Amino acid sequence: MHRHFELEIEALRDDLLYMASLAEQSIAGAVEALKTRDEDLARQVLKQDQVINEMEIKIHDACIQLFARHQVVARDLRFIASAMKINNDLERIGDHAVNIAEKTLELLKEPQLKPLIDIPRMAELAMGMLKDALDAFIHKDTELALEVCKRDDEVDSLEDQVIRELITYMAGDPHTITRALNLIMVAKNLERVADYSTNIAEEVVFIVEAKTIKHHMADRHQEH
Amino acid sequence: MHRHFELEIEALRDDLLYMASLAEQSIAGAVEALKTRDEDLARQVLKQDQVINEMEIKIHDACIQLFARHQVVARDLRFIASAMKINNDLERIGDHAVNIAEKTLELLKEPQLKPLIDIPRMAELAMGMLKDALDAFIHKDTELALEVCKRDDEVDSLEDQVIRELITYMAGDPHTITRALNLIMVAKNLERVADYSTNIAEEVVFIVEAKTIKHHMADRHQEH
Repeated sequence: MHRHFELEIEALRDDLLYMASLAEQSIAGAVEALKTRDEDLARQVLKQDQVINEMEIKIHDACIQLFARHQVVARDLRFIASAMKINNDLERIGDHAVNIAEKTLELLKEPQLKPLIDIPRMAELAMGMLKDALDAFIHKDTELALEVCKRDDEVDSLEDQVIRELITYMAGDPHTITRALNLIMVAKNLERVADYSTNIAEEVVFIVEAKTIKHHMADRHQEH
Repeated sequence: MHRHFELEIEALRDDLLYMASLAEQSIAGAVEALKTRDEDLARQVLKQDQVINEMEIKIHDACIQLFARHQVVARDLRFIASAMKINNDLERIGDHAVNIAEKTLELLKEPQLKPLIDIPRMAELAMGMLKDALDAFIHKDTELALEVCKRDDEVDSLEDQVIRELITYMAGDPHTITRALNLIMVAKNLERVADYSTNIAEEVVFIVEAKTIKHHMADRHQEH
């Protein structure tokens, strides 16, 4: 029985990592589609969301089953509760990839407004945060997790910069407004990915140190 | 022991309802502050977020404790797992209230762009959804819950209308751009509140009927 429980916990960890890789892939794909104006790739991202959604349900059910079938000790309880939250965060990251892919399809209807530099940079930073948050999760590395939390500010200031630049475009030529607005939404979605990655990093600290840093730190995790 | 468990479940339900009322209050306050240009009220909303955040931690911990101390049967498992999700959703609704209050403070720095009609209407709809989702939760009313899910489309189309109108302002006069952009963000935040209310309604159906409708219905719950 005990051995079986360990195997289930391991399977849960593997599923979460797989889910994270899908979410990361979707964000990468959506931003690549935006950058290279690749409609097929954008549509692939929309399709992949179904896989992510099914995975979320599978992981959620697995967590409930763990609670149902085993008398779980405190440490494992924390792990499973955090797995449920991380699962939720990853699914939402998948939704943000969908949003970016949808904005991309909108943007493909008009000529490119400007070559994209800061938005791909934002995506890189956000995906780095997601990757490291998951690494911190596997290796129970609270130092790395705390470092991920700090990087959120960088994404926020890059977002501000992107928005300021796009406002300049809108002010200069009303014909750019819908495109600039779509790009602002992409930036907002990426900022949210960084926020969710921060949430995951916070959960890692919670699992390892059994304390909640979330609301004791700055209010990084709010949408703007 | 059994009796004690029942009491804890009841306390959990009460805490969730209290949390929901705080979240609803914050959204109502933020939109009222925006409408009446009331800086003090906007700042109150920012302050109330701390209470909501503390409540989230309390409820999360209570759920973990329920799992830890009791051998929970399937039906209660589902309830507790859903309570954890609803708790999370309510906390995020609180964050959206903060965002609206922050945009309000930005907007107060400039003269009013236009009298607000559709945004308060969106807020009313979204809050009605939240209220009914919670009512459905208390009364295990799946019909009401499913009806809440359907109302999300109305909020979405109102959001589209708000954005279209604000784009017209931006195109007509570049000086309106930052204000119009802030109002668009308010509309987006309200649309998210409706989405989270839909999530809560979906959880109610899950608790009662033990099935996940979430990803089988239209993709209403994604951000746009």
